[in-house]
Amino acid sequence: MGARAGGRGLELRLGSINLLLLIFFITSLFFNVYFFFFFFSYSSIFSLWPEPRWSQSAAEEAEAVAAISCSGHGRAFVDGIMINGRPSCECNTCYHGSDCSIPSLDCSADADSGNPLFLEPYWYRHAKGSAVVVAGWHRMGYDATGENFISVELEQHIRKLHRIVGNAVVDDRFIIFGAGSTQLLYALVHALSPHNSSSPASVVASIPYYPVYKMQVDLFNSKLAEWRGVTSSWVNESISSSSSSSSDGSMNNFIEFVTSPNNPDGLLKQSILGGSSVIYDYAYYWPHFTAIPAPSDHNVMIFSSSKLSGHASSRFGWALIKDEQVYKKAIYYMKLNTMGVSRDTQLRMLKIIKVILAEHGRKGDIFSFGYQTMRERWTKLNKVVSKSKRFSLQTIPSQYCNYFKTIRDPSPAYAWLKCERDEDQECDVVLKNAGIICREGSLFEADDRYVRLSLVKTQDDFDQLVQKMDALVSDHSSISSI
Amino acid sequence: MGARAGGRGLELRLGSINLLLLIFFITSLFFNVYFFFFFFSYSSIFSLWPEPRWSQSAAEEAEAVAAISCSGHGRAFVDGIMINGRPSCECNTCYHGSDCSIPSLDCSADADSGNPLFLEPYWYRHAKGSAVVVAGWHRMGYDATGENFISVELEQHIRKLHRIVGNAVVDDRFIIFGAGSTQLLYALVHALSPHNSSSPASVVASIPYYPVYKMQVDLFNSKLAEWRGVTSSWVNESISSSSSSSSDGSMNNFIEFVTSPNNPDGLLKQSILGGSSVIYDYAYYWPHFTAIPAPSDHNVMIFSSSKLSGHASSRFGWALIKDEQVYKKAIYYMKLNTMGVSRDTQLRMLKIIKVILAEHGRKGDIFSFGYQTMRERWTKLNKVVSKSKRFSLQTIPSQYCNYFKTIRDPSPAYAWLKCERDEDQECDVVLKNAGIICREGSLFEADDRYVRLSLVKTQDDFDQLVQKMDALVSDHSSISSI
Repeated sequence: MGARAGGRGLELRLGSINLLLLIFFITSLFFNVYFFFFFFSYSSIFSLWPEPRWSQSAAEEAEAVAAISCSGHGRAFVDGIMINGRPSCECNTCYHGSDCSIPSLDCSADADSGNPLFLEPYWYRHAKGSAVVVAGWHRMGYDATGENFISVELEQHIRKLHRIVGNAVVDDRFIIFGAGSTQLLYALVHALSPHNSSSPASVVASIPYYPVYKMQVDLFNSKLAEWRGVTSSWVNESISSSSSSSSDGSMNNFIEFVTSPNNPDGLLKQSILGGSSVIYDYAYYWPHFTAIPAPSDHNVMIFSSSKLSGHASSRFGWALIKDEQVYKKAIYYMKLNTMGVSRDTQLRMLKIIKVILAEHGRKGDIFSFGYQTMRERWTKLNKVVSKSKRFSLQTIPSQYCNYFKTIRDPSPAYAWLKCERDEDQECDVVLKNAGIICREGSLFEADDRYVRLSLVKTQDDFDQLVQKMDALVSDHSSISSI
Repeated sequence: MGARAGGRGLELRLGSINLLLLIFFITSLFFNVYFFFFFFSYSSIFSLWPEPRWSQSAAEEAEAVAAISCSGHGRAFVDGIMINGRPSCECNTCYHGSDCSIPSLDCSADADSGNPLFLEPYWYRHAKGSAVVVAGWHRMGYDATGENFISVELEQHIRKLHRIVGNAVVDDRFIIFGAGSTQLLYALVHALSPHNSSSPASVVASIPYYPVYKMQVDLFNSKLAEWRGVTSSWVNESISSSSSSSSDGSMNNFIEFVTSPNNPDGLLKQSILGGSSVIYDYAYYWPHFTAIPAPSDHNVMIFSSSKLSGHASSRFGWALIKDEQVYKKAIYYMKLNTMGVSRDTQLRMLKIIKVILAEHGRKGDIFSFGYQTMRERWTKLNKVVSKSKRFSLQTIPSQYCNYFKTIRDPSPAYAWLKCERDEDQECDVVLKNAGIICREGSLFEADDRYVRLSLVKTQDDFDQLVQKMDALVSDHSSISSI
């Protein structure tokens, strides 16, 4: 009985240990089953294990570099200069140090270039959608999916983009791609020049104009096209020559550049000479910078990703061309100049434009983001400049925008600042002395009383500009009030 | 006793169940611990869970597209034409169908273009190292890490590559980047032209020459440079003019193109005129295609990724330049032509060249792979062509190669085929009738008894070429034996 009781006691003890073990075992088993199924149902993890996927190390590298902290005043890139085995931070103006955390003393605000970094935060926010993985064997051969080294998908997405934004007619238009609008500007000068004429085409633009037009024509020094100065002077000459009947002043052989909205002053422009040989440079004809009154419907219209998405360094632009002969000449030029645009760039731009299209209409899409950012900057700068009468800014009218379906206020890419005092004949010197780097008016063949201030750079750049401008204006106010 | 024995038996039974459970439990626990640590130590998985990383969807997209089967006769790319919601296969010549599995009937072998797809398998093999992830915000601004829109890291890796291959002297050389060698060829014509001379520079090359040299000079129609035909004719003229003292035939104002190894005939070439204004087009001066007798040490040397790594569509090339003034003029040309080379392309090329350098010296590095592939093709084609006397191929000497440290046999990029029969004056027509697309000799300003056959395309292209060539030769053999 004692033994039996002892046996039963033992049985119970052993039984309860057994039960405990069993519970532990089942719990453990449950976790194992869970882990196991988690592994093999999550396909991406499945393929990671036991063999990592081919894109894995590139993805890890990119994410690791993206995670490098540059204190919000810079950024590290995969192809940055390597220091201590990792890419170093590339700091915004007036910041330095290995993590860009140190403000530079006596540093000038740099409002010079049109570096469109105001859109960088937009792409940080859309990191997941906008990344591209380029395989080592991606599209190695010369051919793209379309003719003339052009991606069919990218072309279609660009046409869709124009239809949505409503800034250009794309039906019955040929499209060519270029390395930014830069390459296309001259490609179109070349294509519009008469190739069998005894005299070269006369290339003209209206003051103030983007200096690259003239610089290209002068540098490439072609027998087909010559820079002939300012559009308006030819209108006058044409009128006087037609009245005095001294001929040869034909307007047929003219190629006119029209930039709308204009760089530097942000105003919407139209051709003065008219005719078919007008190159509309629409780099800034996007809702970030201007009201879109109507879809443009001209013979030659040039756009670029630089001021649309902010990807200046990708060197991507396109032209919409009505006339087939002009198109063919431009295509031939592109072929012999660079054999088309990098297909790596086309791949990336496809992804970028896909994101823009997918986000269209949602809160904070790129055009709302762009407009709000530029609008805010313009308002701030105006407020500062208006404190004094020493300077003035261009006046841009509020205008109905077919994209936003409302009247919108101005938000130009550049401020076209004028020094109003008689003695301030070289406005860039006045600003330089106040610690602001800008572009002098004469670069745009305008008076040096004017300067261009870039508003499209980083927030740091803009903040520094406003700060320096505020100091300059306040300093003047105090002087003038003495 | 019986009870005790029964109790002990029970004890033993329960004990052994206990032990078994314990073993199971410990095993299961072991797996728990293993899974757990695997999860949390493998950082990439850890970060995948619970929140996928920003590069994840791009990586998944790229891997999914890479996994699309095109039957080994084609490939799908992320930016391919979409059919049924996924990129469609892009088939090799003479294959069609949604998965490229159907051979096309009556299909000509295409040996026309220099599409360097023979290197595609190399990059399949090095998938892990060569992929690049481009973030949406990657390097948006115009600036690169170096001046003139050039990546410092890429420049350094290119110099390292030349040092390892031993094909060019890079010390005390400036470097510029271009959209393939295409853009650089004319940039250097421009830079070498005297800009303050009353007469344009005379641009010349030796027959047979790459037709783009002449096409560019003719198309761009600059006041600075004119195409003046064949180098040798100017040497004769120079000799006769110097003997008859009829002046103005100065050789100072000449720009000579030298392609070495030559496109189309694969022979190593030297300048005929000498002097400082020689543009060495070294697109093919890599161990794939030629022995490397020594590092070249000329004033202007142009290279490109197209025939080095096979990435033709990336449009990337570079020039090594000795003279600072020439360099500055070329840089200025590049700036106004395209504002430098796409930084996306530079990012990708950096990765590609890193892989080439990392694999250097290992079995099957890109130069061994390239040489073996091209050598095998050249041998096969020779065997077929030598079956008949109707055709002949260029003779390339075996030569000591400083890279492979041995005498190597020829492995040119192109066959320069001659039709030997009197009646076959248009060799391209003979080949065309036999189902072979090729480039006629006159394109290279040579006799039309010659044609260029490309050997650098896909294995399918080459196999089709050999098959058609074999049929043509056999057909002739049977005819001639009648």
